Amino acid sequence: MNELSLIAIASIISAGVTIGLGAIGPAIGEGLALANALRALAQQPDKANTITRTLFVGMAFVESTAIYCFVISIILIFANPFWNHFLNQAGG
Amino acid sequence: MNELSLIAIASIISAGVTIGLGAIGPAIGEGLALANALRALAQQPDKANTITRTLFVGMAFVESTAIYCFVISIILIFANPFWNHFLNQAGG
Amino acid sequence: MNELSLIAIASIISAGVTIGLGAIGPAIGEGLALANALRALAQQPDKANTITRTLFVGMAFVESTAIYCFVISIILIFANPFWNHFLNQAGG
Amino acid sequence: MNELSLIAIASIISAGVTIGLGAIGPAIGEGLALANALRALAQQPDKANTITRTLFVGMAFVESTAIYCFVISIILIFANPFWNHFLNQAGG
Amino acid sequence: MNELSLIAIASIISAGVTIGLGAIGPAIGEGLALANALRALAQQPDKANTITRTLFVGMAFVESTAIYCFVISIILIFANPFWNHFLNQAGG
Amino acid sequence: MNELSLIAIASIISAGVTIGLGAIGPAIGEGLALANALRALAQQPDKANTITRTLFVGMAFVESTAIYCFVISIILIFANPFWNHFLNQAGG
Amino acid sequence: MNELSLIAIASIISAGVTIGLGAIGPAIGEGLALANALRALAQQPDKANTITRTLFVGMAFVESTAIYCFVISIILIFANPFWNHFLNQAGG
Amino acid sequence: MNELSLIAIASIISAGVTIGLGAIGPAIGEGLALANALRALAQQPDKANTITRTLFVGMAFVESTAIYCFVISIILIFANPFWNHFLNQAGG
Amino acid sequence: MNELSLIAIASIISAGVTIGLGAIGPAIGEGLALANALRALAQQPDKANTITRTLFVGMAFVESTAIYCFVISIILIFANPFWNHFLNQAGG
Amino acid sequence: MNELSLIAIASIISAGVTIGLGAIGPAIGEGLALANALRALAQQPDKANTITRTLFVGMAFVESTAIYCFVISIILIFANPFWNHFLNQAGG
Amino acid sequence: MNELSLIAIASIISAGVTIGLGAIGPAIGEGLALANALRALAQQPDKANTITRTLFVGMAFVESTAIYCFVISIILIFANPFWNHFLNQAGG
Amino acid sequence: MNELSLIAIASIISAGVTIGLGAIGPAIGEGLALANALRALAQQPDKANTITRTLFVGMAFVESTAIYCFVISIILIFANPFWNHFLNQAGG
Amino acid sequence: MNELSLIAIASIISAGVTIGLGAIGPAIGEGLALANALRALAQQPDKANTITRTLFVGMAFVESTAIYCFVISIILIFANPFWNHFLNQAGG
Amino acid sequence: MNELSLIAIASIISAGVTIGLGAIGPAIGEGLALANALRALAQQPDKANTITRTLFVGMAFVESTAIYCFVISIILIFANPFWNHFLNQAGG
Repeated sequence: MNELSLIAIASIISAGVTIGLGAIGPAIGEGLALANALRALAQQPDKANTITRTLFVGMAFVESTAIYCFVISIILIFANPFWNHFLNQAGG
Repeated sequence: MNELSLIAIASIISAGVTIGLGAIGPAIGEGLALANALRALAQQPDKANTITRTLFVGMAFVESTAIYCFVISIILIFANPFWNHFLNQAGG
Repeated sequence: MNELSLIAIASIISAGVTIGLGAIGPAIGEGLALANALRALAQQPDKANTITRTLFVGMAFVESTAIYCFVISIILIFANPFWNHFLNQAGG
Repeated sequence: MNELSLIAIASIISAGVTIGLGAIGPAIGEGLALANALRALAQQPDKANTITRTLFVGMAFVESTAIYCFVISIILIFANPFWNHFLNQAGG
Repeated sequence: MNELSLIAIASIISAGVTIGLGAIGPAIGEGLALANALRALAQQPDKANTITRTLFVGMAFVESTAIYCFVISIILIFANPFWNHFLNQAGG
Repeated sequence: MNELSLIAIASIISAGVTIGLGAIGPAIGEGLALANALRALAQQPDKANTITRTLFVGMAFVESTAIYCFVISIILIFANPFWNHFLNQAGG
Repeated sequence: MNELSLIAIASIISAGVTIGLGAIGPAIGEGLALANALRALAQQPDKANTITRTLFVGMAFVESTAIYCFVISIILIFANPFWNHFLNQAGG
Repeated sequence: MNELSLIAIASIISAGVTIGLGAIGPAIGEGLALANALRALAQQPDKANTITRTLFVGMAFVESTAIYCFVISIILIFANPFWNHFLNQAGG
Repeated sequence: MNELSLIAIASIISAGVTIGLGAIGPAIGEGLALANALRALAQQPDKANTITRTLFVGMAFVESTAIYCFVISIILIFANPFWNHFLNQAGG
Repeated sequence: MNELSLIAIASIISAGVTIGLGAIGPAIGEGLALANALRALAQQPDKANTITRTLFVGMAFVESTAIYCFVISIILIFANPFWNHFLNQAGG
Repeated sequence: MNELSLIAIASIISAGVTIGLGAIGPAIGEGLALANALRALAQQPDKANTITRTLFVGMAFVESTAIYCFVISIILIFANPFWNHFLNQAGG
Repeated sequence: MNELSLIAIASIISAGVTIGLGAIGPAIGEGLALANALRALAQQPDKANTITRTLFVGMAFVESTAIYCFVISIILIFANPFWNHFLNQAGG
Repeated sequence: MNELSLIAIASIISAGVTIGLGAIGPAIGEGLALANALRALAQQPDKANTITRTLFVGMAFVESTAIYCFVISIILIFANPFWNHFLNQAGG
Repeated sequence: MNELSLIAIASIISAGVTIGLGAIGPAIGEGLALANALRALAQQPDKANTITRTLFVGMAFVESTAIYCFVISIILIFANPFWNHFLNQAGG
């Protein structure tokens, strides 16, 4: 049963590091985009609609890279195929 | 029962590192956005409503990456499926 | 009783690193925002109310990421579920 | 069966690190592009169509590098040929 | 009694690293804010009251992240629950 | 059969690190180019054709370095000559 | 008596690293503030009093983070509760 | 036959690291060049021919450093003289 | 007598690292301040007295963080309480 | 024959790291030069000949440092005197 | 006599690292100050006396942090109290 | 004969790292110089002779640091006195 | 005689690292100062004497930190008191 | 004879690292100086003599730190006193 615990430890550490590391880039990228959106708003307040629409569609792109990390992280915790395999084998 | 303690140690360290690492990006990104919001406010005080609304919606996007980390961190401490499995097995 | 001490050591180190690492981002982000708030104030002293209100609401957002770290850190020291489990077991 | 668990652990850690590391670049690159798109919009609001079209086609290029990482990450978890080989051998 | 000394060593190292690491961000953030406050003062000397009041309230926010680190550091040295537990047990 | 698993582990880790590390540069480089393309578009909207054509040809150059990494990564997973050699030998 | 020496070594290293690491941030932060104070002085020599007063009050804030580190460092050398405990026990 | 597998592992890791590390520089360098080419195009649209010709010849220079890495990487996988030597010896 | 030498080695390394690490921040901070003082002097030569007085008082603040490191370093070499304790014990 | 394989492993890793590390500097340096050449072309299109000639001669200088790395890398793989010595000795 | 050589090795490494690390900050800080002094001289050649006097007094401040490192380094080589203690003991 | 192989391995790794590390600085330095030479050419095309002459003499200075690394690297591979000593001894 | 060789190895490595690390700061600092001296010369060619005199006196200050490193490095190779002690003892 | 080979290995690695690390600073510093010399030349072509003379004297200063590293590197390879001592002893 030692294998099962090693898989669990690797999954716990990997899940944490994945989202911890993967949150740095998107957060800085979105902050950068938002900062410039606000400058653009102050410069062209009449085009607020176009600017905020482009901003939120663009931020969804950036957010997607954070979501990839979150998905992998959640898969490693709740739908880990390696864990399931060893669990079935241990239970078989 | 040695496995249980290893899972616990991995969860404790991973939970801490996840949120510790994951707070750097969002905090800097939000600070950057807020800094530019204030400059935009000083430049276009008449559009304060549009600017602050865009700011807080955008910061919610950025905050979301910090919340992903917090969620993973809380899951690892309070709803860790690996820990629960070994606990049930130890208690069974 | 060796497990109990390992959990304690992991909690102590993780609690320290979490808040030590997690204080870097928010502090720099808030400093950045505050710096621009003061420039905005000097530029538009008539709008001091709007600027400082936006500043403090925004800083509460940024502070929230530091508070996530602090919460995890305090949980690991005073409400650690893994520690409590092993303590109950040792005491049982 | 020890080999199987080592392959699993290597796959779990590698999958996490790949997407965690690979999300930093695209997120910052897309944030940078989006930030300048918004500035360009504020400067030339009449050309909003050309700008947003170029932006989203360009971001698809940048996103592609994140998707390479995601693909490798998913392959390592769900379609890992090394894991399959050892699984077949263990089951044979 | 070996456990007690390991807890002590972990607490000593963690207390030092926590405040050593946690002082970097706030100090740079406060220096940044102070630097801009002085520029703002030179630009709008008539609003010195508003500027310095906003500065010191804002710096209290930034200082709070340093204080979180200091609090955790002091707790780990003088009110460490793990140390107290093992001390009571050793003394019991 | 121990050799086969070591080759597999090295291939899994190397494939992940290769594309994870290799995605940072191209993504930032393409983001940088895209950002300036949008500024150029805003400055010379009449030359949109020349600018976007040069942009996409140039981005293909940058993308090529990411593709080198992806190719090596895929070769290490699906067409690894070292793995094939040991597999043939084990099956021979 | 081996425990006592380990506590001593951990205290010595931790005390040094704490203040060595903790001096970087405040020194750069104060240098930054001082640099801008001098620029502000050159720009508004008539307000030298307000500027230098704000500067020195602000630098006391920044200095406080260095002093937290110094305090922890001195506590670890001269008033270390863990050391005192083991010393009393060894002497008892 | 142990030597053969060590050579294989070293080749796999080295091939991946070489191209993974070697893609960072060229990608950023080419992105930088492309970004300035687009600015130059916007500034001198009449000289588009000269600018794009110089750009692509120059990018071939930059690309060459990425190709050196790719060549070494491919040599290590498909034409590795050390591997061939040991293979011949093992087969001899 | 082995403990005494370990304490000595830890003190030697810690003393060196403390001042080596602690000299980076103050030197850069003071250089930054001095650089701006000279620019201010060139801009307002009539206020040389106020500028140089503020400069040297401010540099004393920055220098203080270097002196904290130097003090800890000297204490660890010449007035190390842990060393003295073990020396007395060895001599007793 | 163990020595021969160690030499081979060291050569493989060293060859990869040499060109992988050595490609970063020249690629960024050449990209920087190329970027400024294009700006210079846009500014002085009449001197395109002088500018591109100086650019390509200069880039050959920069390329030379990449070539030094490539040469050492190729020597380590195909003309390694240490490998040849041990090969002769093993064959002798 | 083994202790004596360990003290010697620690002193040699620590002395080198102390001054090697401690020379980075002061050199960059002094270079920065000198660079601005020369700009100030070019801007206000009539005040060369005041500027160079302030420069050299200020550089003495910066140099002092390098001298702290040099002093600790020389103490560790030529007046090391720990070495002297063990030397006396060995000779006694 | 074990010594001979250790010397060979150390020489191989050291030769690669020396030139790999030593190519970063010169390449970036030369790229920086070349970039400014081209800007200077665009600004003063009449002085192309003086500028390019100074550029190439200066680049020879910068190249010299890369050549020092290349020389040490080649010495370590083809004229290594330590290797020659042990070779003579082994052959003697 | 084993001690003597350990002292020698520590001295060799420490001497190399000291000057290798200690050359980075002074070289960059001097380059920075020289760069600004040349700009100052171009701006105020009439004051070439004052500028170059201040430059070379200032560079002697910066050079001094490199010389501290060189002195420690040479002392560790040619006048190492620890080596002399053990040499005398071995010869006694 | 084992000592002799350890001294040789330490010398080989140290010689390579010393010059590899020590070439980074001077090359970047000289490139920076050269870049500004060319800008100064373009700005004041009449003073080409003064500028290039100051440049080459200044670059000799910067080069000196690279030469310190080269000297230590060559001493460690060809005039290593530790190696000579052990060689004499082995030959004695």
